[in-house]
Amino acid sequence: MKLTDIPDDQLNEILPVAKKIAAASGTENYNILQNNGRLAHQEVDHVHFHFIPKPNEKEGLGISWPQTQGNQDRLKKLREEIMAKM
Amino acid sequence: MKLTDIPDDQLNEILPVAKKIAAASGTENYNILQNNGRLAHQEVDHVHFHFIPKPNEKEGLGISWPQTQGNQDRLKKLREEIMAKM
Repeated sequence: MKLTDIPDDQLNEILPVAKKIAAASGTENYNILQNNGRLAHQEVDHVHFHFIPKPNEKEGLGISWPQTQGNQDRLKKLREEIMAKM
Repeated sequence: MKLTDIPDDQLNEILPVAKKIAAASGTENYNILQNNGRLAHQEVDHVHFHFIPKPNEKEGLGISWPQTQGNQDRLKKLREEIMAKM
């Protein structure tokens, strides 16, 4: 199960709940993370959202996200392809 | 601006749109990430959601999330504290 498997009328309830949890936790710094597919770190096969407090540099979520060289023509074409399917 | 600053009637529109983008992209593996606070990797001060395709091990989002020893009594107390504020 991935994000795309959830009906819109259930999806729309999730972030207002995440917001309530964030507020009630009193946490200043935090991440909302939702993983889809084994390759993308999904370890449990139901759709779920992580609320991850980040109290300091060492604890909580660390991310790495290698930057790649952009190609404006390629990006523009990709954007058009995606938009055409929406 | 953080997640808690967005009204529910706007928050509820976000995930159905993310779902449309995920479907249109044709990506099998991907992450939805929303960061709150500098410590938690928020670099731009408006609320925004990242849709991050994960085409292979090297590209896309890498995460590190150090595990800590759980204490059931402490967790139960924390849960009660948070629930009381919701």
